[in-house]
Amino acid sequence: MNASGYAASSATSALAPFSFERRALRSDDVLIDILFCGVCHTDLHLARNHGGFTIYPILPGHEIVGRVRQVGENVSRIKVGDVVGVGCMVDSCQYCQACRQGWEQDCAEGATFTYNSTDRHDGAVTFGGYSDSIVVRDRFVLSIPDGLDLAGAAPLMCAGVTTWSPLHRFNVGPQSKVAVIGLGGLGHMALKLAKAMGADVTLFTRSSGKEGDAFRLGADHVVLSSEARQMAAVTGRFDVIIDTVPYDHDVNPYMPTLKLEGVLVLVGYMGPLGTPVNAGSVVRGRRAISGSFIGGVLETQQMLDFCGQHGIVSDVEVIAIQHINEAYERMLKSDVKYRFVIDMASLKS
Amino acid sequence: MNASGYAASSATSALAPFSFERRALRSDDVLIDILFCGVCHTDLHLARNHGGFTIYPILPGHEIVGRVRQVGENVSRIKVGDVVGVGCMVDSCQYCQACRQGWEQDCAEGATFTYNSTDRHDGAVTFGGYSDSIVVRDRFVLSIPDGLDLAGAAPLMCAGVTTWSPLHRFNVGPQSKVAVIGLGGLGHMALKLAKAMGADVTLFTRSSGKEGDAFRLGADHVVLSSEARQMAAVTGRFDVIIDTVPYDHDVNPYMPTLKLEGVLVLVGYMGPLGTPVNAGSVVRGRRAISGSFIGGVLETQQMLDFCGQHGIVSDVEVIAIQHINEAYERMLKSDVKYRFVIDMASLKS
Repeated sequence: MNASGYAASSATSALAPFSFERRALRSDDVLIDILFCGVCHTDLHLARNHGGFTIYPILPGHEIVGRVRQVGENVSRIKVGDVVGVGCMVDSCQYCQACRQGWEQDCAEGATFTYNSTDRHDGAVTFGGYSDSIVVRDRFVLSIPDGLDLAGAAPLMCAGVTTWSPLHRFNVGPQSKVAVIGLGGLGHMALKLAKAMGADVTLFTRSSGKEGDAFRLGADHVVLSSEARQMAAVTGRFDVIIDTVPYDHDVNPYMPTLKLEGVLVLVGYMGPLGTPVNAGSVVRGRRAISGSFIGGVLETQQMLDFCGQHGIVSDVEVIAIQHINEAYERMLKSDVKYRFVIDMASLKS
Repeated sequence: MNASGYAASSATSALAPFSFERRALRSDDVLIDILFCGVCHTDLHLARNHGGFTIYPILPGHEIVGRVRQVGENVSRIKVGDVVGVGCMVDSCQYCQACRQGWEQDCAEGATFTYNSTDRHDGAVTFGGYSDSIVVRDRFVLSIPDGLDLAGAAPLMCAGVTTWSPLHRFNVGPQSKVAVIGLGGLGHMALKLAKAMGADVTLFTRSSGKEGDAFRLGADHVVLSSEARQMAAVTGRFDVIIDTVPYDHDVNPYMPTLKLEGVLVLVGYMGPLGTPVNAGSVVRGRRAISGSFIGGVLETQQMLDFCGQHGIVSDVEVIAIQHINEAYERMLKSDVKYRFVIDMASLKS
C-alpha cells in the first residue's frame, strides 16, 4: 500500500519527501497510522552514514506512537483503534535463547530493526517512523497506557527503555542511590525514571546552569564533575551510575563514586574508551563497568506501564516534519529540551 | 619477643636473614609458629618497591600456615596447638559498613595488611610470613581443615581466596561455564576451584603445550587465544571469565566469548588497560568488566572449608628460605608450577 514520509538518499542529502510502499499485511501484522515519531541521535548518525552501514534511501524513526488501522487475521491482542507504540525493533527470530529470555535486541540471528534493516521474511529494507504509516509484526507492537501525552510518550520507545532497562536490572528502588551522567534525551529520562522508582538521584554534569532543570526532572543533587571537591564528596555513594554520554569520555573519575559492588552502565556510547580504564578501579571494591542496549519487548511494555502509573513522559519539542533537517542541526548542538518529536499530521500539510 | 626471618633492606637488596621483635600478645592476639609461607608475586613487587610505597626493611609473606603457640586472654575460638592460616590482612576497623559486610579488604579506614602496613593500635610496621612466628588479631586467624597438605594449603590464603571470591560471588555451580585466562599461581587455583564447584571450565592461554597441566588441574577445554578460529568457536559461551593476567593486556578479544550478562573479572592486574576498552562490548549483551581483590575473612574461611571438603590445595614447589632470592628470579620467568612455598623449618638450618 502507498505510504509517504521523509527519507535521505545519500549521506550528504537532506531528508526530503519520499513515497514508497508498505507491505500488505501478513497474518500477524499490524498496520499503524503514525501520530508522532521521536527524533533520536541514532537517526542522524544513520542518515549520515556515520557507522558506514547505511542503506539508501534511509527513512529513520524508531520512537513511534500511532493508532491501529488494520490487523492481520491472526492478531487478537491488538484491536483497530488502539493507541500503540513501536520502538527500535520490529521482528526477531523468536526461538533463540535471547529471544526466549525476552532479550530480542540480542537475538542470536540479529533482530530486525525498525529502519535500515532487512525484513527477515521478504528481505525488504525496513523504513521507519518518519512516515504516515508502518506495518509491524504484532509481537513488537506495544500498548500505550491511557492518559499519557502521546507526543511525550514517543521517546519512551527508545530513550525511555534504554535508561529504564539498567535501572530495572539493577533493582533500583527507594534504598538506591543513582547517578546519571549527562542531561540530554537519555539523561533526562534517567532522572525521571530513577526518581519515580524512589531512588535518591544525582546528576553529574560538566557545566553549571543545569541545576534548575535537573531538580525539576527529578535530581536530588547536582555534582559538577569538573570540581574535584564535589567529586570527592560523593566518594563511595552510588549503587548505579547511568552514563548517557554519547561520545568517547573518561570513565575513571566516576568509578570511585560507586559503592562497593556498584556498577557504571554505559548506554550512550559504543566505541573505544580512549582514556585507559584503570583496572584497579574495578578490582578494588569489586565495582564494574557494564552497559545496556535499548531493551526487550516485555521490558519495554513494563516501562510503558510504569510510566502510565507515574505519569512519566519525555520533555519534548514538537516539530513539523518539514523542520527535521533544522532539528538535526540543533540536536548536534544539544539545542533541544530534551527530545524533538515530529507531529506526523504535518506530513499532510 | 624475639623473631627471625628474611627481609629486604632496600629495593635493590636481596632478601637476607633479619632479626626483629614481635609484639607481646594483646588480649585478642594469637601467636603462631609459622610452618609454611607461600611466595606471591606481590611479595616481589613490594620487596622491590614497584608500587613506590614500600617501607624498608620489608619482611614479606601473606600465605601463612602455622600452629598456635599462645593466645591472648580474651581468645576462646582458637586454641594452642590449632593449625591455622593467615592471609593478606591482620586487622581492620571492624565497624565500617564494609567490615560489617565481611569485606575487611575494603575497610573504609583501610585494612591492616600482613606486611608493609601499619598496625592500627601501636603504629608499628607489620612484618609478614617469611619468619618463624607472627602475632595476629584472632578475628583474622583462619582454621585450616584437617587433612590438607599444609604446604599446599598456604597459597590458599591469597591465591585461593582471590579466585574463589569472584567464583562464589557470581554463583558458579554445575550449570556454569567458566573460563580462566592465564595459568599461573592464580590461574591454576581458579581451574581447581571452578571444577570443584561443578562448572564446565575452559583455560584461555596464549601458548600451546599447557593442555596436559590444564586438564589435570580441572580444565575441560583449552582455547589458544592467539587462534581466531578457536576464539570464534567459544563466542557467547561463558558466564564468568576469571582474568588472572598480572600485566596490562587487551581484554576486548575475550568479551564476545561471554554470554549475555556475562562478566569478566580482573584479579591479577590493577593498572591502566592500555588498549582502549570497546564500550560496545559491554553495551551489547549487557556484559561487564569487573574485578575482585582477595576476599574477606568469612569468605576466606568458607573457601578453606570448601577446599577441605574437596581436598583442594595449591600445586607447590617447597623451598628452603635460603633460596628465596632464586625463587623470585624464577617467578619472574614463570618458572614455577605453580607456587613456591617456603618450608619455615629451613630457617633454623
